[in-house]
Amino acid sequence: MSTALPIETDALVIGAGPVGLFQVFQLGLQGLRAQVVDTLPEAGGQCLALYPDKPIYDIPGIPRCTGRELVAQLLTQLAPFAPGFHFGQEICQLQKQADGRWLAETTASRRFLARTVFIAAGVGAFVPRTLRIDGLAPFEGRQVHYNAMPDAGLLAGQKVLIMGGDASAVQAAVTLASAVQTSEPAPRQVTLLHRKDAFEAEPNLLHQLQQLRQSGQLRVQLGQPIGIQTHATPQGERLTGLQVATDEDTEHTLPLDSLLAYLGLSPRLGPLAHWGLAMERKLLSVDPATFSTAEPGLFAVGDINHYPGKRKLILCGFHEATLAAFAAAALVHPEQPVRLQYTTTSTLLQQRLGVTP
Amino acid sequence: MSTALPIETDALVIGAGPVGLFQVFQLGLQGLRAQVVDTLPEAGGQCLALYPDKPIYDIPGIPRCTGRELVAQLLTQLAPFAPGFHFGQEICQLQKQADGRWLAETTASRRFLARTVFIAAGVGAFVPRTLRIDGLAPFEGRQVHYNAMPDAGLLAGQKVLIMGGDASAVQAAVTLASAVQTSEPAPRQVTLLHRKDAFEAEPNLLHQLQQLRQSGQLRVQLGQPIGIQTHATPQGERLTGLQVATDEDTEHTLPLDSLLAYLGLSPRLGPLAHWGLAMERKLLSVDPATFSTAEPGLFAVGDINHYPGKRKLILCGFHEATLAAFAAAALVHPEQPVRLQYTTTSTLLQQRLGVTP
Repeated sequence: MSTALPIETDALVIGAGPVGLFQVFQLGLQGLRAQVVDTLPEAGGQCLALYPDKPIYDIPGIPRCTGRELVAQLLTQLAPFAPGFHFGQEICQLQKQADGRWLAETTASRRFLARTVFIAAGVGAFVPRTLRIDGLAPFEGRQVHYNAMPDAGLLAGQKVLIMGGDASAVQAAVTLASAVQTSEPAPRQVTLLHRKDAFEAEPNLLHQLQQLRQSGQLRVQLGQPIGIQTHATPQGERLTGLQVATDEDTEHTLPLDSLLAYLGLSPRLGPLAHWGLAMERKLLSVDPATFSTAEPGLFAVGDINHYPGKRKLILCGFHEATLAAFAAAALVHPEQPVRLQYTTTSTLLQQRLGVTP
Repeated sequence: MSTALPIETDALVIGAGPVGLFQVFQLGLQGLRAQVVDTLPEAGGQCLALYPDKPIYDIPGIPRCTGRELVAQLLTQLAPFAPGFHFGQEICQLQKQADGRWLAETTASRRFLARTVFIAAGVGAFVPRTLRIDGLAPFEGRQVHYNAMPDAGLLAGQKVLIMGGDASAVQAAVTLASAVQTSEPAPRQVTLLHRKDAFEAEPNLLHQLQQLRQSGQLRVQLGQPIGIQTHATPQGERLTGLQVATDEDTEHTLPLDSLLAYLGLSPRLGPLAHWGLAMERKLLSVDPATFSTAEPGLFAVGDINHYPGKRKLILCGFHEATLAAFAAAALVHPEQPVRLQYTTTSTLLQQRLGVTP
C-alpha cells in the first residue's frame, strides 16, 4: 500500500463512461465533490472505445450524436464541478474504514478516502482481445502485440503479419506497407490477415489499402489462425509463422517476425470481482430507489448494476446516477433534508453551476 | 358518446410534454404506433407553458437548453414515428373493454381503441389561475377574462383593468395602452395592477411600459384585490370596480368595465381523478420495473407517477418511458421476447428510425 496521503473526497466515481460522467454532474448539483478513476487513458468508456464515430439515436433530446460527441457534451456539462480525473489506472483495493468512509487504492498507487463510492464500471475494464492459440502466450510483448504498434526501428527489415478487419488493423497495415520500399527504417514484407475480404474503415483508408495491394506493397491473406510455427535458436524459442486455415479447406503457414493483432476490445471485470460484493452474473444488485448496493455508501450505476426491469441503456444510467446522487447527499449531509430543486428556477443550483453569481 | 369509429392504435399517450414525446419515441423503437392527446394547443407541456425561454441545465448531454429548444429536439427525434397528435382536448372517458383494450374519448369527441395507455399528464392539465374573490365568478367570460384578450371592439371606450406582473400581463397592458389616443377602436383608460412595482418581461417590453407610464397613457397601480364593487342595471348586475388594499394599509376602488387577469397557469388533475385509478396524493402508484399501474396495459410516466425514490425530473421520466415501452411491447406482442437492442448497432432499430434502408 502506498504511503502518500489519500485524497479525501465526498465521492469516488469508478468509471469515466457516460454514466460515470453524468454521476459527477449530479453529485455536483447536490454540492458533492468527486474524484474519477478509469482504466482507459481518457474519459468516454465504451462510448469512445467501441463506437466513437458511430451514431447514437436514443439519447433523449439528441436525435443523433456519435459516442465522441456525447462524451464531449457530458464533459462540458460537468465542467463547473471540476472533478479530479485519474486515468490509466484501476482501483485494486477498496476497504470500508471504521468511520464509514471507503479507502481505495489504484494500480498507480493513488489513494482515496471517500464518503461515498459510485461503481460506474460498465461491463468492466476494456482490454484488447487476444488470440487463443496454444503456445502463443510466451511471445506476447516480444513478437506478438495486441492493439499496439511497436517502434518503427523494431520492425525494420522484418516480415510483419497484421491481423484484423477494423479501421485500426487497416490503418496499421497501410502505415507499415507505405513505408516498404522507402528509405525509412521499414518492414521487409507486410501481410494483412482477415477471415474475409471485407474491411471496416473510412473510404479514404480503404482506397489506400486497395492501392497498396495493387502495387504489391501489401498482401492480403484470408483465413483463420489455427496454430503457430516456432524455431529453437541460441537466444531461445522464436515465433516464425502462423498456421492459417482458409475457406477452401487448405492450410498453410504465413511466415512472420512480428504479429500485430487488432481483434477489438473485450470487457474484463477486473479486481472488482474480488472486493467481496454481492454479485449476480457479474452484476451488482442495487435498490432501484437509491441505486445503493447492500453496502451503505457504495452505489452501482449503469451497465454494472442489476434491478427488476433493468435495461442496459445509457439513458437509464442517467436516471440511476441522478437518484444515487440524491441518496448520497442524504448520507453525506444527514442533517439537511435533500429537497428536489430545478436548475431552471433554483438560485442555489445555478450558483453551483456557475451561471448565477 | 361519439358515434364515429374509434382510432385503433397500439398506444394512446395522454400528455405531450417532454416525457410523453419521448414515450412516443421509445414506443416507436419497439415498433408500436402511438396517438397523442393534450389539452394545450401544441406539444411541450409544462416545459413550453411555464418556461419556454428559461434555460434547463440538467438534461444529460445537453449542457443548456430552453424548454422550447428541448421540445423542438424531442419532436425531431420522434418524427420518424409520426404519431397522431390531438391537441386542445382532454380525455374525458377511459374504459377497459372485454378484449383488454382501452376505449378513450376526448372532450372533442375523438375516440381511441388502444392496446396500451400511457398517462404522461404531468401534474395535470394547465388552466389559467383565477382570482378568488367573493361574487366575481358570475362576471367571468363577460367582464372578467383570464389569460385572454377580448376583441378590440369589445373594449372600445372602456376602462380596462389589467392584473398581473409577468410578460403576458405587461404585453396586454402595452398593447391596449398604445391604442389609447389613436383613431383605432381603443379603451378609454388602461390600468395595470400588480402587488409590487416590479415586472418580469423582456427589457424591450419593460421599456415600452415605462414610456407609456411617463406619457400618461398607462397607469400602474400597486395593491392586492380584496373585493368588488357592483351596480344593478336594467340589464342585470354589472361589475364596476375592484377594491384594492395597498402596502400603506389604505384601501380604494379601481373603476373598471373589463378586468383582464394574467395570474399564470395552475395544474388541474381533471377527469383523470374520476377514472377510478389507485391514486396517492393525486399521484398514480407504479411498479418501477415497468411503470405500469395496477391495471395491466395502463402505464404512468413522468410527474404524475409515484414509486420509491421518485424525483420529479424530466430525465427520470425519460427512463420511465423507456422501461414502460419495453413492458408495452411485451404486452402487445406476447409471442416474441423483447430483446435489448442498440440504435448504434441494430439494423432493425435503424430501419424503424429510417436511417437505414
